Amino acid sequence: MKTYNNPKREEWNQLALRPSINQQELDELVSSIIKNVKLNGDQALIDYALQFDRVALNELYVSEKEIEDAKNEVSNELKSAIQLAYANISTFHQSQQIDEPIIETVKGVNCWRKPVGIEKVGLYIPGGSAPLFSTILMLGIPAQIAGCKELVLCTPPGKNGKINPAILYAADLVGVTKIYKTGGAQAIAAMAVGTDTIPQVYKIFGPGNQYVTKAKELVQQMGVAIDMPAGPSEVLVVADQTCNPEFVAADLLSQAEHGPDSQVVLLSDNESTIKACQLAVERQVALLPRKDTALKALTNSTAITFQNIKECIAFSNQYAPEHLIIASENASQYVNDITNAGSVFLGNYSCESAGDYASGTNHTLPTNGFAKNYSGVSLDSFVKKITFQELSAEGIEKIGEAIEIMAEAEGLDAHKNAVTLRLNKIRNGRN
Amino acid sequence: MKTYNNPKREEWNQLALRPSINQQELDELVSSIIKNVKLNGDQALIDYALQFDRVALNELYVSEKEIEDAKNEVSNELKSAIQLAYANISTFHQSQQIDEPIIETVKGVNCWRKPVGIEKVGLYIPGGSAPLFSTILMLGIPAQIAGCKELVLCTPPGKNGKINPAILYAADLVGVTKIYKTGGAQAIAAMAVGTDTIPQVYKIFGPGNQYVTKAKELVQQMGVAIDMPAGPSEVLVVADQTCNPEFVAADLLSQAEHGPDSQVVLLSDNESTIKACQLAVERQVALLPRKDTALKALTNSTAITFQNIKECIAFSNQYAPEHLIIASENASQYVNDITNAGSVFLGNYSCESAGDYASGTNHTLPTNGFAKNYSGVSLDSFVKKITFQELSAEGIEKIGEAIEIMAEAEGLDAHKNAVTLRLNKIRNGRN
Repeated sequence: MKTYNNPKREEWNQLALRPSINQQELDELVSSIIKNVKLNGDQALIDYALQFDRVALNELYVSEKEIEDAKNEVSNELKSAIQLAYANISTFHQSQQIDEPIIETVKGVNCWRKPVGIEKVGLYIPGGSAPLFSTILMLGIPAQIAGCKELVLCTPPGKNGKINPAILYAADLVGVTKIYKTGGAQAIAAMAVGTDTIPQVYKIFGPGNQYVTKAKELVQQMGVAIDMPAGPSEVLVVADQTCNPEFVAADLLSQAEHGPDSQVVLLSDNESTIKACQLAVERQVALLPRKDTALKALTNSTAITFQNIKECIAFSNQYAPEHLIIASENASQYVNDITNAGSVFLGNYSCESAGDYASGTNHTLPTNGFAKNYSGVSLDSFVKKITFQELSAEGIEKIGEAIEIMAEAEGLDAHKNAVTLRLNKIRNGRN
Repeated sequence: MKTYNNPKREEWNQLALRPSINQQELDELVSSIIKNVKLNGDQALIDYALQFDRVALNELYVSEKEIEDAKNEVSNELKSAIQLAYANISTFHQSQQIDEPIIETVKGVNCWRKPVGIEKVGLYIPGGSAPLFSTILMLGIPAQIAGCKELVLCTPPGKNGKINPAILYAADLVGVTKIYKTGGAQAIAAMAVGTDTIPQVYKIFGPGNQYVTKAKELVQQMGVAIDMPAGPSEVLVVADQTCNPEFVAADLLSQAEHGPDSQVVLLSDNESTIKACQLAVERQVALLPRKDTALKALTNSTAITFQNIKECIAFSNQYAPEHLIIASENASQYVNDITNAGSVFLGNYSCESAGDYASGTNHTLPTNGFAKNYSGVSLDSFVKKITFQELSAEGIEKIGEAIEIMAEAEGLDAHKNAVTLRLNKIRNGRN
């Protein structure tokens, strides 16, 4: 970890920078994958599975039987844990389902919004070493609550041609309607354009490597919505003397183990806390199975001492971290100072792992500084809010003249005329 | 208007298509504008003003004095109309400010969301024949309610180097903090990258021509959020025998006058209603100042008779119109069948103009079929919702084991360890 002491404000911008990723060179490759999937559909997906995943597939679709078999392979212990997480995530996301009232802005003018689930959504779950069934819960549960009708899941199979049973168990639990064995940029392409087997969807969610990220960016330009732009995962911890350095170290490392490009930032109002946390990191990292990954991530990471905690929060707002942990017994007093963050963990017992798995909050969050302009995934991400209005004769009489004046001033006479005709009708009806 | 009678389901897809726009050729031009603004800042903007707007500017910034002068130039009649619209739009958007409760998902595990205004937002208002001050209300009012700190407005000056007074009056009313005389793709670029004069913003809102639209698309890939993808404006009217054909015609024309690429669709359950509306269109269009524009738009437009109103709504859901008018005395009975639409106008007195100007709903809406996956602009568009969580010792004890099991199953041992350390501390504290 690079360590800084009371950097000047002018240096903050530099310290808050993320490593830049050259995505331009990806453009061509990923564009060609999308084009191929558009042209050759399922066959392109089967070819890519052989080329990239080293697996010969006869069938992309995961059958009922495979799902039933998988359910039997998941231990009861893991099932119970997933069910507890399911319950908490459901409770929190259900609380986001708020019926908005009908607002009578003027007598006879009623306006309201109605949330309607996006009809067809696609979830992407990467393969690789970690079977991210927790992400299925985070995306599938709000989709289920939103009432999305078609919930498509794409995930690459292992070398044995199978999907991890915990993934299938979680997918079944959240009511995924169709599961396909396909991964990478080609899976995103398939959900964006549709193939004979895989339905086209209106919005695509889920994490992935740089190819997946680029594919999501490109299909967005084709009219498919995506959850949010992506970047490497990150945590910023603000710790004071009331923190527990072992806990802080464990939280920093649970971010660092994600990948060598993970970002870890530690801020404090005193050097001794920084040192204590760094020592604890050194002790703990040595014992981790993913030690090499975590050590690499730590080399990009920074520890900074500021004058006081308010300054730490000010820097954090400029950095706009995906995860922000306030490791202090007085954490709650800083809540109103926080303006840019994806998800905030208050106090010594609120570890990031809690939000990653089971407290109820969503773990799909804006990284890479996007917490300045994007929210994390929530129920809102799976609905459109349609506005409605109903005007009575009295309503249009009350606001009609103002509309006529404004439409005329904007040079839009037909807009004005639509009101004038109605006002005339009402007035004539009265004579 | 092209007229169809009971088209088969297989034909719906074709009928719901929008004319495709070739945006690829724009890419190069708009990219070069963005690059130039990044490199040459204010000077590039001044050069483009001369080149595109034929105006020599000394200053991009609109002074206090120009704003004060403008206020005196707006008629009291127009001021009152704008104030009425301001009040209604404020009322409706304030109703979207809902305090979400703290949810205790499990004893000792508290989760909540807090909306925080996006700190810096940019509004773009096009120039041209119509001074769209109404759009300033639609974007500025929710920004004001959201508590956005910096509210930047860019709009091109007229040939006299000035901005339309109604635009400056509306901008002042909604609390725009800085106004600049610059338009087109270069204005979007300036707000995305920042110049010596114009601050960089985190999210850009507002309508524009194909260059503006392309610039918004390109800066989005640079990390700036945008309100939504754009396309030509459109209305779909579902009319039955209880409609007033003159009103329907006026509503169709108030869409058609926007531009030659505007989309107008009329659906009914009977041919005589379609014919009556078409005759009224012919009569009314002849009297419009923007007749030529409206006539061009009508040539792209369609009128379709279906078996019944439910079928009309089903087609509308597939079309996903920006504006949907149900021109019927029984409009409200169809509300629950509507799944894809930007804004819906129920009954014979709810004309689109009402929502465009003064009823209270927002007029910045998803076009081009994007109502399938995007909402219109609302208060939500100007905030990020940050999630918070606070776990007590009891809380982490209750969910800790489930987290340990799930983290282990995902192969993320440091995630597990962050919980184990805390559980050990609690248990040891008890001994």
